[in-house]
Amino acid sequence: MRDVAIIGIGETKFGELWEKSLRDLGIEAGFKAMEDAGLSGKELDAMFVGNMSAGQLIDQEHIAPLIADYSGMAEKNLPAIRVEAASASGGLALSQGYMAVASGVHDIVVVGGAEKMTDVGDETAGEILAKTADQEWEAVFGATLGSLYAMMARRHMKDYGTTKEQLAAVAVKNHLNGSMNPNAQFRRAIKPEMAINSAMVADPLGTFDCAPLSDGAAAVILAPLDKAKKYTDTPIKILSCGQAGDYMALHDRESLTRMDATIVAAKKAFKYAGLKPKDIQLAEVHDNFTITEIMAIEDLGFFKKGQGGKATEDGLTALNSKISVNTSGGLKAKGNPVGAVGVGQAVEAVIQLRGEAGERQVDKAENALLHNIGGTGSTAIVHILGRVR
Amino acid sequence: MRDVAIIGIGETKFGELWEKSLRDLGIEAGFKAMEDAGLSGKELDAMFVGNMSAGQLIDQEHIAPLIADYSGMAEKNLPAIRVEAASASGGLALSQGYMAVASGVHDIVVVGGAEKMTDVGDETAGEILAKTADQEWEAVFGATLGSLYAMMARRHMKDYGTTKEQLAAVAVKNHLNGSMNPNAQFRRAIKPEMAINSAMVADPLGTFDCAPLSDGAAAVILAPLDKAKKYTDTPIKILSCGQAGDYMALHDRESLTRMDATIVAAKKAFKYAGLKPKDIQLAEVHDNFTITEIMAIEDLGFFKKGQGGKATEDGLTALNSKISVNTSGGLKAKGNPVGAVGVGQAVEAVIQLRGEAGERQVDKAENALLHNIGGTGSTAIVHILGRVR
Repeated sequence: MRDVAIIGIGETKFGELWEKSLRDLGIEAGFKAMEDAGLSGKELDAMFVGNMSAGQLIDQEHIAPLIADYSGMAEKNLPAIRVEAASASGGLALSQGYMAVASGVHDIVVVGGAEKMTDVGDETAGEILAKTADQEWEAVFGATLGSLYAMMARRHMKDYGTTKEQLAAVAVKNHLNGSMNPNAQFRRAIKPEMAINSAMVADPLGTFDCAPLSDGAAAVILAPLDKAKKYTDTPIKILSCGQAGDYMALHDRESLTRMDATIVAAKKAFKYAGLKPKDIQLAEVHDNFTITEIMAIEDLGFFKKGQGGKATEDGLTALNSKISVNTSGGLKAKGNPVGAVGVGQAVEAVIQLRGEAGERQVDKAENALLHNIGGTGSTAIVHILGRVR
Repeated sequence: MRDVAIIGIGETKFGELWEKSLRDLGIEAGFKAMEDAGLSGKELDAMFVGNMSAGQLIDQEHIAPLIADYSGMAEKNLPAIRVEAASASGGLALSQGYMAVASGVHDIVVVGGAEKMTDVGDETAGEILAKTADQEWEAVFGATLGSLYAMMARRHMKDYGTTKEQLAAVAVKNHLNGSMNPNAQFRRAIKPEMAINSAMVADPLGTFDCAPLSDGAAAVILAPLDKAKKYTDTPIKILSCGQAGDYMALHDRESLTRMDATIVAAKKAFKYAGLKPKDIQLAEVHDNFTITEIMAIEDLGFFKKGQGGKATEDGLTALNSKISVNTSGGLKAKGNPVGAVGVGQAVEAVIQLRGEAGERQVDKAENALLHNIGGTGSTAIVHILGRVR
């Protein structure tokens, strides 16, 4: 396996983008990434696309060749591969593209993630998201992702004393970070009381404990590291990737307060990279709900199980603290265009590792971790990226 | 890249399987393949699943970890990857699994394809299939896959003199082959008049020019060739894989009578395998419509452009003729559980190359070609398999 680098990044604004279609978004992100890498479409060998539910959301399956076509790649008959793992679809596209380049199957690959959520109403979008948990045992009885994560939050509170104030601290931090990200959907800092007193969605999770439903796309260009210097002075290396699965339905799992898929995927990624949690300066973790970030920073090994809420409240995950978590604003504030999330995490990590993050820049950023999960955690994908020294 | 072999195969019956859910089908095929390989779940490193539209068809996204879970693989946190390329989803799962093993990322991998079409009515299923063409430029105006393929057929007739009798000859051959396949949906031979006079679907395509909508699943187990002998005396080697794309909408293509994605994918596959069309004894080609098979056997290089219809009428694609095409019965008679098709093609090729096909056995079968397309041909995936000599 050869070393692989990210040589170009592109991203649309995340948000309610009424005027843009999925193909508009995919093309915009892809072209920005190619422009960033300074390469032409002729140099591409394959395209990997992460998308959750275009079939349901915009009545279009088979979107990988569609985006390839509308990007001008049909003329050269570019192979285009769509992957799906619910909200981990973007991370899955990145991992499959990474392996294709690492193995030598392809040289230059574009990895994109895109989702158009707002063409259907919130209710329909919520129903579609619920279908990423176990439909026959959960969604069919009315369980939404919000209600399933609320059970995890309630149990985390019972077992570890996690508080609603600690959940709110996640939202406050991520909104502050998002206020510094030009591509973020929500660019206003919020006060703790605003989150704590927000309308209840699924007890104990209020509006500000939930990520929005967003439109958006992100793309990265991958190349073998030894060819990367041709395109960029600051290639960012993909040090490793780990993927793991878990039981689909919550009731089958041993614990509601940890995600085994995250634990196993992280172990694989740390092992392959030869790094430990203390070697990571920034992490983009999956925060579709505030409780998800708290569980993630525990399961990834940054904090002991049960300490994630307190660590957040104590400011240990704020920008330039112990570990900078979700400097982009996370799903909570940057936005949640589902299939784009995992690729967008890579975009943020590259911006940070290049030292181009401006007012939200993490000092001495050497290594970044990306954590993307699907459904209620039956898929977890962890990547570790690093500066080339 | 190391050599990869198929060491186990499993398949459900294809058909209207009212009593079985998608998860039932996936598990049945997977377990059969593992039993065939004589391995336990503990030995698996990853699962690749091809599926077109579970989100729309059975209200369940994220089906890769679902099938892994219900197969008992959640306990070991097996990574499960779903890929989608419309009706080429099965072929895509095979190619991604193949590359994962060839590159050394994984050792033992299960590749499955599954689709549950019949829980929605025929009309809805037809609408979902139409979403695999260009929704904004084709489906939204009422174009179905049938009507789009009908235009290809009409043009093929105009340019090359292809006749309705020749289209019918495809159906007659595939029904005859299907009558010898215990897993086929339709197991009755038909007469040419039955096909020619069948009710019109989209002129010139009648009922017997169209594959059915089916439920079903298929699975294969892949391993590095040097480990394959531990599991089987008759490993079947994957010699190569080629994938290519094309314009989504028919109106953007230079020609209606050829599929460039097939031509490019086949060239790649033949080149990498070091073989020519004359080295292939049997081919499972995509015959969602009879015209598709005629175009495929031309684009794959078995017959000159325009000669596919006559070649079929002359019996050159019948069992043990010049080249045995769709010995399984093809999508036409074996059935069309969309995401399972490409993997089912591999199952048939392995049965043939092992010499276990009974009354439909191809003599001296050394090499087999698999051809799987998505939508109206904006994705094509070609695999070449061979006996280990």
